[in-house]
Amino acid sequence: MDTFRFYCPIVVRFSDLDAYGHVNNSRYLTYLEQGRVEYLTHLGLWDGHSVLESGFILADVHIAFREPIRLGQDIRVGVRVTRLGRKSLQVEQNIEESPSGQIKASATVVLVAYDYHILQSVLIPEAWREIVAKFEDIPLKK
Amino acid sequence: MDTFRFYCPIVVRFSDLDAYGHVNNSRYLTYLEQGRVEYLTHLGLWDGHSVLESGFILADVHIAFREPIRLGQDIRVGVRVTRLGRKSLQVEQNIEESPSGQIKASATVVLVAYDYHILQSVLIPEAWREIVAKFEDIPLKK
Amino acid sequence: MDTFRFYCPIVVRFSDLDAYGHVNNSRYLTYLEQGRVEYLTHLGLWDGHSVLESGFILADVHIAFREPIRLGQDIRVGVRVTRLGRKSLQVEQNIEESPSGQIKASATVVLVAYDYHILQSVLIPEAWREIVAKFEDIPLKK
Amino acid sequence: MDTFRFYCPIVVRFSDLDAYGHVNNSRYLTYLEQGRVEYLTHLGLWDGHSVLESGFILADVHIAFREPIRLGQDIRVGVRVTRLGRKSLQVEQNIEESPSGQIKASATVVLVAYDYHILQSVLIPEAWREIVAKFEDIPLKK
Repeated sequence: MDTFRFYCPIVVRFSDLDAYGHVNNSRYLTYLEQGRVEYLTHLGLWDGHSVLESGFILADVHIAFREPIRLGQDIRVGVRVTRLGRKSLQVEQNIEESPSGQIKASATVVLVAYDYHILQSVLIPEAWREIVAKFEDIPLKK
Repeated sequence: MDTFRFYCPIVVRFSDLDAYGHVNNSRYLTYLEQGRVEYLTHLGLWDGHSVLESGFILADVHIAFREPIRLGQDIRVGVRVTRLGRKSLQVEQNIEESPSGQIKASATVVLVAYDYHILQSVLIPEAWREIVAKFEDIPLKK
Repeated sequence: MDTFRFYCPIVVRFSDLDAYGHVNNSRYLTYLEQGRVEYLTHLGLWDGHSVLESGFILADVHIAFREPIRLGQDIRVGVRVTRLGRKSLQVEQNIEESPSGQIKASATVVLVAYDYHILQSVLIPEAWREIVAKFEDIPLKK
Repeated sequence: MDTFRFYCPIVVRFSDLDAYGHVNNSRYLTYLEQGRVEYLTHLGLWDGHSVLESGFILADVHIAFREPIRLGQDIRVGVRVTRLGRKSLQVEQNIEESPSGQIKASATVVLVAYDYHILQSVLIPEAWREIVAKFEDIPLKK
């Protein structure tokens, strides 16, 4: 399945390019992160201001790079939660050219709920899980 | 004078924030650079692909920081060429909140025409100068 | 096996931190890239200047994040080529605290030999393969 | 005067380069910032951990760019406090090649003491001013 219920547009910046003249590999993580931030904001789960409330830490990421990205290309990041555990969740993300949907990179990300005040992993709030499950139409894992 | 004939919208990324939770000072230069890149593209003076043809090197920059920038704020960069010499040009740029126009930072930048193939400063092409002079309605300095 | 024949020291910069006050996840890719650059330089396979001769493109990366990295910590990146094909190679890399060796993240990276002039994947030069195989004491895959 | 009582070494990263193959202009601000962070750490005025205690905000910066910086060059940032007011201070900084001292860029920076908890400018602590004045051998401005 290659479609997403949420896409985040990305404007490629000149400063995203490296000495090869295409977007540096580290910026793929930046684009993926921005996609997740805007996904959470879109679902009303993060206001973008109280950063310390966002409550997730990146545990694992796999990226398959398919095509270089160049300045002037229209890019979007598709975001989809595919597994919704009690303490962690799995997100699939594509970086695509827009509007063609040509895949530049595909990624699988595991996030763990984390309380930045007590510096410990915690349970994902149930209300939060329900909103995501409903949006994605996936079951809540007990 | 606080208005510009060209504005470039900037999407603040989570990764632009530093440990203080606001946009890091180095990103102001990134935003200003992006404003100039899109200004040149808008005037048809750069296609965004043949980077080595763009022909300018940053010689001098002054930035007055007025207000921190936060995630979720709508930002734009105003760009205006204010002096158009034979080998260099001066650009005034504001980083503003949009649509209020509240100034986050104001900058003055001097660029020198540069040939990246021969690694030397060169004359600005006359056709290039005429397009900018007409757009800004400023005189061509001989 | 947790030891490497090559380590690259990394100085954490204030600008590597994000709004959570620890090193942003995208910088892990930057640290890993820097480790590979210095590995190639150390083996005399790249002079650091003729970027377009370096000849590799990132195809695939997996990162397991173990511990956050903070400003003031001494960090090093271990680099080891673990598979040496004719057109691609696999690299294992740890980001560790130094000198304890505490693992901050471990990564597996696949690189493909690439000619940036003709924009195509190419064979890894045989002399190049021999130098790496000798350094790592691993067989050359035919 | 071109000498400093404090220098901070900088390791140029591949990811500091832009599409022109030299260090991007925004990284000059990153290098200058790192120089100030290590200056404060060297004088015992910042522990590098309690970021919110560092208490300065960038108000104004001027950079004169002299020479491009390339990968593989040894770089250092000279840092010198040249004016020590009650609420602000002025810092002069050079980015130089090491050990030749060839100047890549010179900058003048104005910092304002700032309390990140109450989001207001504050007085620089007197003990803090005395340590800097003694290190630089400059008078305390009343």
